[in-house]
Amino acid sequence: MIRLNFAVAVSALALASPALADTLIDNVDGFTLDDKGQVQRISGLVFNADGKVVQLLRRGDKKPAKTDYYIDGKGRVLMPGLIDAHLHIMSLGIAAMTLDLSATKSLAEAQAAIAKFAADHPERKWIIGRGWNQEVWKLGRFPTAAEIDAVVKDRPVWLQRVDGHAGWGNSLALSTAGVTAATKDPAGGRIERLPGSQAPSGVMVDGAAALIEKHVPQPRAAERDLALDKAQDLLASKGVTAAADMGTSIEDWQALRRAGDSGRLRIRVMSYASGVDAMTLIGGSEPGPWLYDDKLHLNGVKIYLDGALGSRGASLKAAYADAPGNKGLSFLTPAQLRNLMSRAAMDGFQVAVHAIGDEANGQVLGAVLELNQTYKSDRRWRIEHAQVVDPADIQRFGQLGVIASMQPVHQTSDRTMAEARLGPNRLSGAYAWKSIATSGGKLAFGSDAPVESPDPFAGLAAAISRQGPDGQPFGGWQPQERLTREAAIAGFTTGAAYAGLAETRFGRLAPGLRADFLLVDRDPLLASPTELAQTRVLETWVGGRRIYSAPVTSAQQKPSDP
Amino acid sequence: MIRLNFAVAVSALALASPALADTLIDNVDGFTLDDKGQVQRISGLVFNADGKVVQLLRRGDKKPAKTDYYIDGKGRVLMPGLIDAHLHIMSLGIAAMTLDLSATKSLAEAQAAIAKFAADHPERKWIIGRGWNQEVWKLGRFPTAAEIDAVVKDRPVWLQRVDGHAGWGNSLALSTAGVTAATKDPAGGRIERLPGSQAPSGVMVDGAAALIEKHVPQPRAAERDLALDKAQDLLASKGVTAAADMGTSIEDWQALRRAGDSGRLRIRVMSYASGVDAMTLIGGSEPGPWLYDDKLHLNGVKIYLDGALGSRGASLKAAYADAPGNKGLSFLTPAQLRNLMSRAAMDGFQVAVHAIGDEANGQVLGAVLELNQTYKSDRRWRIEHAQVVDPADIQRFGQLGVIASMQPVHQTSDRTMAEARLGPNRLSGAYAWKSIATSGGKLAFGSDAPVESPDPFAGLAAAISRQGPDGQPFGGWQPQERLTREAAIAGFTTGAAYAGLAETRFGRLAPGLRADFLLVDRDPLLASPTELAQTRVLETWVGGRRIYSAPVTSAQQKPSDP
Repeated sequence: MIRLNFAVAVSALALASPALADTLIDNVDGFTLDDKGQVQRISGLVFNADGKVVQLLRRGDKKPAKTDYYIDGKGRVLMPGLIDAHLHIMSLGIAAMTLDLSATKSLAEAQAAIAKFAADHPERKWIIGRGWNQEVWKLGRFPTAAEIDAVVKDRPVWLQRVDGHAGWGNSLALSTAGVTAATKDPAGGRIERLPGSQAPSGVMVDGAAALIEKHVPQPRAAERDLALDKAQDLLASKGVTAAADMGTSIEDWQALRRAGDSGRLRIRVMSYASGVDAMTLIGGSEPGPWLYDDKLHLNGVKIYLDGALGSRGASLKAAYADAPGNKGLSFLTPAQLRNLMSRAAMDGFQVAVHAIGDEANGQVLGAVLELNQTYKSDRRWRIEHAQVVDPADIQRFGQLGVIASMQPVHQTSDRTMAEARLGPNRLSGAYAWKSIATSGGKLAFGSDAPVESPDPFAGLAAAISRQGPDGQPFGGWQPQERLTREAAIAGFTTGAAYAGLAETRFGRLAPGLRADFLLVDRDPLLASPTELAQTRVLETWVGGRRIYSAPVTSAQQKPSDP
Repeated sequence: MIRLNFAVAVSALALASPALADTLIDNVDGFTLDDKGQVQRISGLVFNADGKVVQLLRRGDKKPAKTDYYIDGKGRVLMPGLIDAHLHIMSLGIAAMTLDLSATKSLAEAQAAIAKFAADHPERKWIIGRGWNQEVWKLGRFPTAAEIDAVVKDRPVWLQRVDGHAGWGNSLALSTAGVTAATKDPAGGRIERLPGSQAPSGVMVDGAAALIEKHVPQPRAAERDLALDKAQDLLASKGVTAAADMGTSIEDWQALRRAGDSGRLRIRVMSYASGVDAMTLIGGSEPGPWLYDDKLHLNGVKIYLDGALGSRGASLKAAYADAPGNKGLSFLTPAQLRNLMSRAAMDGFQVAVHAIGDEANGQVLGAVLELNQTYKSDRRWRIEHAQVVDPADIQRFGQLGVIASMQPVHQTSDRTMAEARLGPNRLSGAYAWKSIATSGGKLAFGSDAPVESPDPFAGLAAAISRQGPDGQPFGGWQPQERLTREAAIAGFTTGAAYAGLAETRFGRLAPGLRADFLLVDRDPLLASPTELAQTRVLETWVGGRRIYSAPVTSAQQKPSDP
């Protein structure tokens, strides 16, 4: 069957075109959310050559008399494409091209992986990687430079922590960067020191990581292009049809534009520039139009207010339970935060502030309270992560119209660490998506990839169960925060679209919206949480164009052949 | 009559559109060059909804049976749109928004203009301008900071010389930048000193200007957008339908993309990035596609090898006749030049090297001779300006296939200065376009706006007459270098298109090429040089869309009403 190349730009005027080619997919066991967040079962849909939905079919509806193309859904489950409201698309691709330590279960495993990667890549001048987590290793402390030196000392090694908020280098990396016992902690950062010494241990937290990173070779443009392709491959295979890129640099943006210009942009990207300067350089004095048939848009800016919980960079109202006297790091004064938010908002850019600790979340909510006096129109202020919120502040999400952009899998990955960092008395406001939703706050769900896997089905399972992929803990962690399936799906579809200013373009299946949909191997409305997390995506369609087909494993799962 | 909005992107597949709307313009006294550079007279043309020429009509041809739209040319002269092979589009727009000293005839006039501009713009923290020329003022020396202080001393003032290769500041600008008697000349630059002293005089040549400029507030994005609009207005009014932007920064590129994205790009821009780093940031690992219906393309990179003649920054083989011992400035070693050219060429980017002095031109030609061993395909190496060439080197343009991108009006503006700088024995290779063409070198003509007016008719007149707008000198300066009208027009049309990799897209009127054309008030093939320079553009069309109509001054000159 013929498939049109919908990647070409289609004129809004359509230049007196005749009736455009329509495609019918039917015989599916499908669903979408409607504009009220209710599940609607559908048996098929029609989309046009613009890649937009023309009609939804319900069981018993008469089949449309005539469409130009036809696909038999063979009874499979069709659902809206999923939207990741918070990831780092370039880092995700680059992570796929560098050393990935996220599966390592111990320091020894990590050391073996570092040694192997270095041996496999003798041409690389630096060994770069990411994904380590001393909590998973049950190390009880940060690792040290000497522990890398033991396996690689001839080249500098620099490895980001899983949360991106700390880095671990070997001695050559430290000496290349000139970091010594005499180096002072920079503002917004901390150089970890060896016990009883001023000597740097090898781990640099938040702002301190920049001391090393400015010496790390930056990816070349061709590597960025490759990374973007790899990230898109990965996202498409997981059923992600749109994503918010949180912290787009000008180099990232240029790679996105190159992909758009040459028809290689398959996933929709809502971009949040990496700071106000990048925002202005990319967008100028306004966010500009949606590009490439709604595949790329600069929504606004990502601003960092604090660090992460694991590396004790999150800014807390009271000290860390496991580090007396340490309340974490705040990168901006209240005045600086308001100034940056205002600079973006005054030109119509959306503002997304990274806030993990309860102090940081309170700061953003306080800033929004003030800024709402000036910026009265629909601003869709976003808090990224909203991970630990003072219960007294939760209601303010709803009152102020602040979007909580959360990552359900963080809860399941972090719960033990969070208990250690926060102690027992601050957990009720941690990863508290249900409470935020109940307050009237809008939820948008994402993965924070490459910090976590970009698989949204794992996120859906966590959102409804508060259990990890192992089914632990029994009954769910802080189970009062579990969501309904509909609300969880909304977080990854309509909620994420709303958070990304895209609800009139995509996020659910309805006439006039983009035909972004999945065929999957089970019904997410019926599967148990454990089964849900294992959902296999069979096909991914963006704008009426199939961008992914799962490898054929059985006759039953054979992809459609449009 | 209805006019379609051709700015919308039209699919190459045309999505099974019906016959697209065609427009006929006839009853014109027109001409174009053909693919052999010969003049072809035409009486009309047909273009389609893609903005491409479908058919040329010659007198006596049968009128096409049926087109959707019709324009009566009313007997006026139709000619191909003109291409400026070398200008600075953002600077041209910004010049229109800042102090323009190019019309001042004396230091006193300039001082009055500075005082008035400062008084008219009390809100500006810096007074910025350009266009001064101490040669025109017959000052016999550079002006001084004290001469600005006499009229403005409460705010820093920074004024670029007409050629962009020197700047003149007041004392506050110097002190703001910390430039004192103790400041050493930076590499590739010269701080002018007061006579008998090390104290800075106020003028900073070439690389030294950066000491001040890094303190000058950069234009904001909104100002760049406005500047680009202003520059396009100006170019369209002069009959320029395409231009090579020589030295595009990432900020400039983003403004061009914003204009393209929002349908505000009216003039075609062939971009040469401002150095290899900007080239890579903009283009990545390849030049990428032509965007917005051939309205924007990153062709390659602009590299500066030397300065300008007026400020004695041009690199000469022998010393300046009026500055014994001074051979000017070379910004790059031969190895650095080859390295930069190679880095661009290896990824398929075109290289345009600014070379004004005979030493600099010889350096580029030598580098091309070597690089042609490696890069054997059609590279279209460009030398920008090729202003003073050793007669022994001229033949190498043809031998090596090097494009000479020259600005005819520079010859008429500079001739007295050039005689002073070069003395009588080096003039035969100065502005020697005819000799370069005779050697087989390809010519591309431009204006270097805002260094000169962007009016290409002034350039055409200079190219055929070697006389200024005043008709001086009688018979033309070095008149053996005069070109035929056809060759001069080729320099601003087919030659400039070839130099910009665009000869299959635009530059002449022929089926399949873009319908970029002008209606003008006289026939450039018949007008005297003085008359030619005064040609008035009545209408400018780009891609079959009218982007400029002259204000109506009489019934006879009433623009067409499509």
